[in-house]
Amino acid sequence: MSSRAHPVDGSPATDGGHVPMKPSPTRHKVGIPPKQNMFKDFMYTFKETFFHDDPLRDFKDQPKSKQFMLGLQSVFPVFDWGRNYTFKKFRGDLISGLTIASLCIPQDIGYAKLANLDPKYGLYSSFVPPLVYACMGSSRDIAIGPVAVVSLLLGTLLRAEIDPNTSPDEYLRLAFTATFFAGITEAALGFFRLGFLIDFLSHAAVVGFMGGAAITIALQQLKGFLGIKKFTKKTDIISVLESVFKAAHHGWNWQTILIGASFLTFLLTSKIIGKKSKKLFWVPAIAPLISVIVSTFFVYITRADKQGVQIVKHLDQGINPSSFHLIYFTGDNLAKGIRIGVVAGMVALTEAVAIGRTFAAMKDYQIDGNKEMVALGMMNVVGSMSSCYVATGSFSRSAVNFMAGCQTAVSNIIMSIVVLLTLLFLTPLFKYTPNAILAAIIINAVIPLIDIQAAILIFKVDKLDFIACIGAFFGVIFVSVEIGLLIAVSISFAKILLQVTRPRTAVLGNIPRTSVYRNIQQYPEATMVPGVLTIRVDSAIYFSNSNYVRERIQRWLHEEEEKVKAASLPRIQFLIIEMSPVTDIDTSGIHALEDLYKSLQKRDIQLILANPGPLVIGKLHLSHFADMLGQDNIYLTVADAVEACCPKLSNEV
Amino acid sequence: MSSRAHPVDGSPATDGGHVPMKPSPTRHKVGIPPKQNMFKDFMYTFKETFFHDDPLRDFKDQPKSKQFMLGLQSVFPVFDWGRNYTFKKFRGDLISGLTIASLCIPQDIGYAKLANLDPKYGLYSSFVPPLVYACMGSSRDIAIGPVAVVSLLLGTLLRAEIDPNTSPDEYLRLAFTATFFAGITEAALGFFRLGFLIDFLSHAAVVGFMGGAAITIALQQLKGFLGIKKFTKKTDIISVLESVFKAAHHGWNWQTILIGASFLTFLLTSKIIGKKSKKLFWVPAIAPLISVIVSTFFVYITRADKQGVQIVKHLDQGINPSSFHLIYFTGDNLAKGIRIGVVAGMVALTEAVAIGRTFAAMKDYQIDGNKEMVALGMMNVVGSMSSCYVATGSFSRSAVNFMAGCQTAVSNIIMSIVVLLTLLFLTPLFKYTPNAILAAIIINAVIPLIDIQAAILIFKVDKLDFIACIGAFFGVIFVSVEIGLLIAVSISFAKILLQVTRPRTAVLGNIPRTSVYRNIQQYPEATMVPGVLTIRVDSAIYFSNSNYVRERIQRWLHEEEEKVKAASLPRIQFLIIEMSPVTDIDTSGIHALEDLYKSLQKRDIQLILANPGPLVIGKLHLSHFADMLGQDNIYLTVADAVEACCPKLSNEV
Repeated sequence: MSSRAHPVDGSPATDGGHVPMKPSPTRHKVGIPPKQNMFKDFMYTFKETFFHDDPLRDFKDQPKSKQFMLGLQSVFPVFDWGRNYTFKKFRGDLISGLTIASLCIPQDIGYAKLANLDPKYGLYSSFVPPLVYACMGSSRDIAIGPVAVVSLLLGTLLRAEIDPNTSPDEYLRLAFTATFFAGITEAALGFFRLGFLIDFLSHAAVVGFMGGAAITIALQQLKGFLGIKKFTKKTDIISVLESVFKAAHHGWNWQTILIGASFLTFLLTSKIIGKKSKKLFWVPAIAPLISVIVSTFFVYITRADKQGVQIVKHLDQGINPSSFHLIYFTGDNLAKGIRIGVVAGMVALTEAVAIGRTFAAMKDYQIDGNKEMVALGMMNVVGSMSSCYVATGSFSRSAVNFMAGCQTAVSNIIMSIVVLLTLLFLTPLFKYTPNAILAAIIINAVIPLIDIQAAILIFKVDKLDFIACIGAFFGVIFVSVEIGLLIAVSISFAKILLQVTRPRTAVLGNIPRTSVYRNIQQYPEATMVPGVLTIRVDSAIYFSNSNYVRERIQRWLHEEEEKVKAASLPRIQFLIIEMSPVTDIDTSGIHALEDLYKSLQKRDIQLILANPGPLVIGKLHLSHFADMLGQDNIYLTVADAVEACCPKLSNEV
Repeated sequence: MSSRAHPVDGSPATDGGHVPMKPSPTRHKVGIPPKQNMFKDFMYTFKETFFHDDPLRDFKDQPKSKQFMLGLQSVFPVFDWGRNYTFKKFRGDLISGLTIASLCIPQDIGYAKLANLDPKYGLYSSFVPPLVYACMGSSRDIAIGPVAVVSLLLGTLLRAEIDPNTSPDEYLRLAFTATFFAGITEAALGFFRLGFLIDFLSHAAVVGFMGGAAITIALQQLKGFLGIKKFTKKTDIISVLESVFKAAHHGWNWQTILIGASFLTFLLTSKIIGKKSKKLFWVPAIAPLISVIVSTFFVYITRADKQGVQIVKHLDQGINPSSFHLIYFTGDNLAKGIRIGVVAGMVALTEAVAIGRTFAAMKDYQIDGNKEMVALGMMNVVGSMSSCYVATGSFSRSAVNFMAGCQTAVSNIIMSIVVLLTLLFLTPLFKYTPNAILAAIIINAVIPLIDIQAAILIFKVDKLDFIACIGAFFGVIFVSVEIGLLIAVSISFAKILLQVTRPRTAVLGNIPRTSVYRNIQQYPEATMVPGVLTIRVDSAIYFSNSNYVRERIQRWLHEEEEKVKAASLPRIQFLIIEMSPVTDIDTSGIHALEDLYKSLQKRDIQLILANPGPLVIGKLHLSHFADMLGQDNIYLTVADAVEACCPKLSNEV
């Protein structure tokens, strides 16, 4: 319906020469978009919500066989990048695979203890999930395995239900159940394309939450670092420091502290060296493995374990036993497993998707958020059946993987083969590894999670964001991980609700020598037209803000009338609402406009709308508000509207 | 910091003559608002959120005594309007008071049965709360007392906890506890100025919920209307119809049906007469009282109660006994009371505030939402201590009050005096009143709640709104009142979340012979500038939509590049983002812009921002994104931006 927008005024078309004729006061009719029927309208919203990246784009008009191949490749990307895999890529993957293996083996043992599980489960979780991810995942740089924050979260959630010391078997079964349902949640989110739910954890909340979790994890390591036996179960800073100082006089073991402190300094210095130049990236990568080997050798020779230095003692040999029969599918443990699984799954997902996106942006390739979630979900489902607990992408190991020049997910396969070999042959060697070294490795690994720069940037840019960040940070440190998470999510939601219930409104003024109207606070030189008040509403008018918008406009009008009376300027006769930011309006919004129109009419002020969007003008016509207001009170631009008001104004003043 | 916006170009100021010099290509610098410190920024958001109607406005620079008087008047408005009360106003209030009294007495008895309470509690609730409201409330037209929807909601919620037949005392105590906490919730919402939470029940959801509740209530009356003894406890339509037809052969009592049907027709015809002309408004108003008197007299003479016509039987005489000692303040009934009180209080509040606003708009006086809530809350708190259950504003009675020409809240005082006299002297007269007549009165009262016109308007205007309306409607009818309410609220929330996570984006084109760029779908005549793609983002860019916005822009670019390649037009070299609707941006949004900038740079496409708002440009500078993008890539208008790109374009093409 491309109706001629305005009558041809017969003036010779200016050829873009210097002095175009002043645009004759042709009043452009505000375009009404073609009437979309309900089904098309609903399909548009549905498609934008769930399929906004138009996944089936490449499938269009392809032969059946090609479509099947594309389908297979979309579920198992390995068939896609596997086809053009070169030896050069393999070299990069080999180096990076070995590097992250050396990093993940000591970390796995430590992280398993965070989840109150036997160290071997940490290694198991670095064997099966990476293999599954390599086939189904589409991120090239992510390093899969257990991570500190998720291990801590799982540990605290599980311990709240079952005490790992008194009934370890039941605890283990609940851990596998939680992992199973974490996988199901992640895969379901991906399958039903609900990926955008992850976006609800705001960036600021994640920064705060991660920082708080890092400090909590570091505090937990004090037990291993200082060699304390009796330690609090709670994770908040007060109870931890309390039990640390209570054990001060008799509990600390100076030999343990000596080992821990020396190797921690070694690890930190290797990190500083690594930062010096890109080429030295491997130094901080293999430092953990070296410190494990050296410290184990040292304890083995000096038999320090006799003088109170706690050691790993026993690490079973052999690969993952099947654990499908251990998963609870009935009883009240099932409900607990589901609840813990969903929370752990969502947090694990947020981390992995954030990592995937960061490195995809760096190497400029696209990853499909929803497909990632299906891959991460399936790897945890398979993992839960092979004695693994929740695995996800690890920030620190992925960064090392990226710097070590990994090309494809084959780096994960190499890592999991090295872990397999360790499980088969090397586990006895860890007998004399002191706990203190594991504590040092974990502390060293979590430090980069405390992102001070990001927090400072958030403070400078958006104060409300900063409150969400600090809320999550202190929530995790002073109360517990779940409460910290809860605070983070609720502040994020509150921010959305605030934005939706209290939109900004601005008074506009004309910028001299242009036909442009802008916010007078931002452009002090903009002048207001006497007798006319122009207000811009900066959001869609919905039920959640329609009353506020109406009352706020009436208050602007009230203040303006007082100023005009004080300066004895001409009375305000026109109220122009600049509607361009008003992307949509619902029935409550239309009622608010009707009420505003009636109350203005009683005070002999004419309401005028400028530049209503396609959706809004359509709805104003459907609800007959446009007829009530009068067609000639709706203009394309504020300039047109003011021009139309001026003649009426001049004869009155 | 009102820096000179642009260099004076020395050209003679045009005197508004006909041929203004083409605005020399002075590029207006995008104004950066003065740096607001954090405290002022926080105070602005705080003030706009909680005190947007600036309640202390009249208190400024007033002498102490005047301020005290104003304070007293704001808490007890009766001192304000009471002062200039004339005999003429009293006459209007007297007539309207008597009219709504005749309407509310029969309704109260029926509504109390809805809440599974003895009829006298309905009358009690029309005596104390209206008096309290008359002193503290500021709406002139609202009629206070028990209402059908809230009585049904309270009845179903209470019956789910305690069976009214087996333990009536405990049921009664829980009812008073729920009323007490409903009052506390309402007063707290008002006191902490959280009134905007009520706005979250969207208009469409309320229409659907009320319609469903009206049908459910009418179905409940079938028990009294058909004289059935054994009746289902559930309120959903299937179980009700089931128990109606199960009792069909032996349960129905034809005398009861005869009385009920005849008086229902009488009430409906009186309603049609009332609609004929304004002057006959009183006919439908006193019809219920007449039908009660006539039917009671008829049953008394014919002793119809002997032939199975159920009657009210016993109605205690005397005014409200104190019930403060009956309210639970400890034990698990306390928790139940709080939960039920909060739900009932919120629904009651939504109705009363909606009524207050509608009539305030009609008579063009302002009511303060938050003060109303304190008044409604206090009246329920006092009511709970004097054997009343949850009272609020009634749609039907307020409309009659309005038409009967009420002037002030004195109409409520008159009504409560008439109710007092009834309680003291007239209760024995109700002994022979048949339940069927109460059922007929309630059916007649709830019919206007089914607002078909509003539903049709919602269907025409906003399909998503319509889904919320239907969802609530079927939820109440087919499941239960609480589930209907839950569906209504969650669909309203989903709509907000959808708006926040999936903002609209539009491709802009230039409208011939103007410097205006508009949505090409709405203005088919708008033409796109070759080599340049202009996209407008129609919402604030927050964490909840930053990824979607980035991906959606990249998809527009991808589609445009395909079209341009197909039509072998010049390559796209500039991507202009029209930022005027982008009212705010947070750190996630800035990260999204950075990622977009980097990925565009790799494809040698220059990113340009047009007309960023005051908040946005401030944050872009703080986060150094503006420097990264380059100052000269931020323009005041799209027209300026296109003009700046054209020279660079022309030499390339």
